[in-house]
Amino acid sequence: MADQTIPYKIYLTEEEMPKAWYNLRSDMKNKPAPLLNPGTGKPLTAEELSPIFCEELVAQELDDTTPFIEIPEEIRNFYKMYRPSPLVRAYCLEQKLGTPAKIYYKFEGNNTSGSHKLNSAIAQAYYAKKQGLKGVTTETGAGQWGTALSMACSYFDLDCKVFMVKVSYEQKPFRREVMRTYGASVVPSPSETTEVGKKILAEHPGTTGSLGCAISEAVEVATKNPGYRYVLGSVLNQVLLHQSVIGLETKAALDKYGIKPDIIIGCAGGGSNLGGLIAPFMGEKLRGEADYRIIAVEPASCPSFTRGTYAYDFCDTGMICPLAKMYTLGSSFIPSANHAGGLRFHGMSSTLSQLYHDGYMEATSVEQTSVFEAAEQFARVEGILPAPESSHAIRVAIDEALKCKETGEEKTIVFGLTGTGYFDLVAYQKYNDGEMTDTIPTDEDIAASIAKLPKVPEA
Amino acid sequence: MADQTIPYKIYLTEEEMPKAWYNLRSDMKNKPAPLLNPGTGKPLTAEELSPIFCEELVAQELDDTTPFIEIPEEIRNFYKMYRPSPLVRAYCLEQKLGTPAKIYYKFEGNNTSGSHKLNSAIAQAYYAKKQGLKGVTTETGAGQWGTALSMACSYFDLDCKVFMVKVSYEQKPFRREVMRTYGASVVPSPSETTEVGKKILAEHPGTTGSLGCAISEAVEVATKNPGYRYVLGSVLNQVLLHQSVIGLETKAALDKYGIKPDIIIGCAGGGSNLGGLIAPFMGEKLRGEADYRIIAVEPASCPSFTRGTYAYDFCDTGMICPLAKMYTLGSSFIPSANHAGGLRFHGMSSTLSQLYHDGYMEATSVEQTSVFEAAEQFARVEGILPAPESSHAIRVAIDEALKCKETGEEKTIVFGLTGTGYFDLVAYQKYNDGEMTDTIPTDEDIAASIAKLPKVPEA
Repeated sequence: MADQTIPYKIYLTEEEMPKAWYNLRSDMKNKPAPLLNPGTGKPLTAEELSPIFCEELVAQELDDTTPFIEIPEEIRNFYKMYRPSPLVRAYCLEQKLGTPAKIYYKFEGNNTSGSHKLNSAIAQAYYAKKQGLKGVTTETGAGQWGTALSMACSYFDLDCKVFMVKVSYEQKPFRREVMRTYGASVVPSPSETTEVGKKILAEHPGTTGSLGCAISEAVEVATKNPGYRYVLGSVLNQVLLHQSVIGLETKAALDKYGIKPDIIIGCAGGGSNLGGLIAPFMGEKLRGEADYRIIAVEPASCPSFTRGTYAYDFCDTGMICPLAKMYTLGSSFIPSANHAGGLRFHGMSSTLSQLYHDGYMEATSVEQTSVFEAAEQFARVEGILPAPESSHAIRVAIDEALKCKETGEEKTIVFGLTGTGYFDLVAYQKYNDGEMTDTIPTDEDIAASIAKLPKVPEA
Repeated sequence: MADQTIPYKIYLTEEEMPKAWYNLRSDMKNKPAPLLNPGTGKPLTAEELSPIFCEELVAQELDDTTPFIEIPEEIRNFYKMYRPSPLVRAYCLEQKLGTPAKIYYKFEGNNTSGSHKLNSAIAQAYYAKKQGLKGVTTETGAGQWGTALSMACSYFDLDCKVFMVKVSYEQKPFRREVMRTYGASVVPSPSETTEVGKKILAEHPGTTGSLGCAISEAVEVATKNPGYRYVLGSVLNQVLLHQSVIGLETKAALDKYGIKPDIIIGCAGGGSNLGGLIAPFMGEKLRGEADYRIIAVEPASCPSFTRGTYAYDFCDTGMICPLAKMYTLGSSFIPSANHAGGLRFHGMSSTLSQLYHDGYMEATSVEQTSVFEAAEQFARVEGILPAPESSHAIRVAIDEALKCKETGEEKTIVFGLTGTGYFDLVAYQKYNDGEMTDTIPTDEDIAASIAKLPKVPEA
């Protein structure tokens, strides 16, 4: 192998691990638009948010000026259990592709939640514990976030109630069992345990649930039960803040070897992984200290950046959450079946939306069959079975590396490998059996749901 | 946390990784008894073994004098993709237990095969490739070994035929899909593709298969097809040799911080993990340079060390393999249902059997409900969902740590965490639902199968 002064895996020492999260918003001239109260059209205050979220998390949500926020020691100790995550030089993939490009990936899948979600789950659980709460509630679709939160709550002896979309609860019993093993109570949603659940079940007796409904149930339980708050695994500013640990570690590892990336690639659903990975690089770009090509990759079945509109919208399909300004396909948009459950979100982080709007990053969309082709190619040479979500980034990283092969350019490509695919083998089976298809929304589909965007009251 | 001069995870650098495997047999005064030809009762020669196994592997199998065997560069490069594995200081578990003991575990689960099996799979695939073979055949029960071999063969572009016990093929479709994703052909056994398979199907039309039958099919295909050989994932001396990388890394990591373990604990099925973990420590013990308590942990449902007999026996239930001298419950012994599929083997590595016989190590057996109790306790504080097999070692490590709590002794305990439990969630579900039971063989059961041990012909 050429260039073997760089090890296969770069690990930071514990001393080199980040001691503070980086708040990307602090370096943005155009700040992300604030969350609005859907009734008044006014920006939500800390007071309005604190019955739902923990106090310190509300403060983090609203803080767009402080550049660095210290990571509490308890969280840093937990991080040491599964972090630093390795920055891997994909020597074998490069060789297989015959590319002069140098490919690195930051691998977040070496923990039992199987993804980067744990980085924010442990932070949110910590602040809940610190506030003296009894527990937290959340929703989960495919189950990655619910698993991460269960692990975090177990660590801090917090009660954890997860509303799991009924169809996933039934079809993904293994994810459910991991959560139960970590002591969480997992309720199929809609359920008889909440008012909103009862109402939905009365109206739609046979429903298999939706993320929007699960959010509504989780928020209801959090707000009705003293000592509980609701937590969320993506989209929010606070989540991107916690996830900055990914990018900070990546940058520290690259700096250690004097490596400067040309292209940084991440998959994008709600934006938590991408926002975390690019944070310190984007910071340099915003401050004019460096330039990078930054590429968000989304599924062609749910293309909020590439085919959505930049407007205020609800974060949930149930339309009970605050309004966020973001690239959105409309909260009534129902993405066609896609095996990357973590990317099936109609909107996008407000922070990333503003950056994209201002031209600081690119976006592209890819079809799932080509994603699984890349996933399999990657698995065979790099020895890691990637999650379908992460494989979106692999697809584009491979495409960029192949362009380098044509041009002879030795570009350095860094991508985020957010997780493993151990719980996605139904999807792999479909791919292996040649039964996977691509379903892309028509322009009419998208126009119809965008037409239903909420009218924002005059503030 | 006390004692935080030791990091949570000790990683070796690439330069510090072992460059040679350690051949434990070289330091044994009483060598493990040789494999015998069941027809003649004579030790098997290289000539007799080479139609079944690759030439270099036969040489390794028979070599009980060379202390170190160089790890070829291609294998070392592959090792760098997923090794070094971390030696983890279980600070959180220690705190939870309130023990003065210092607990370390060597975690082999951070690769897609999910266990240590890949360490030998890649070596066996390499030698097959080097010999110019087209492919290899093997059997797999629960699927860990088959997965590891698929990954290894994919890396070296070797054909890989896996005979998977039919009941597992049907009940563990996800393991099967991982193998297929790595390009292996996976055949449910018994099958119509072999003579022995056809014969068994004719005699037992509804059979769901057995490991013994799958071995027979794999050996038949290997010996009948030019360019193919058979490979095996445990029990054999060559496998223990390759797995010594676990112990060598562990020892190097401990030495780096001047740590001397008091107790070393590993689960034991065929012995590949335990033999690998303890190798360099046992070497010191054999040479009189150091002393360690070494404990093999086996399931109470399949207690070959603790309730078996030391005798020549077949390695397979089909009785077509060579005879090995080992602690055995008899090759006709059928262990009761136990969720640690990797430990459901009637015998034990000849090398470990000899060491146990000579008093160099202890053995203990544990019941699966107490194993899952330990697994859950571990998962909740250490953030890793352990494989049922590995959890046998966790159980005894916790027990030893609790003894230290009583006596106040600050013993250093090292155990092998061989893998993750992502494909064992049916078992976790049973445990979570309170439906797991313990079934321990009666003395009569064991006596009956031991009575059927083969008569060894006079050599």
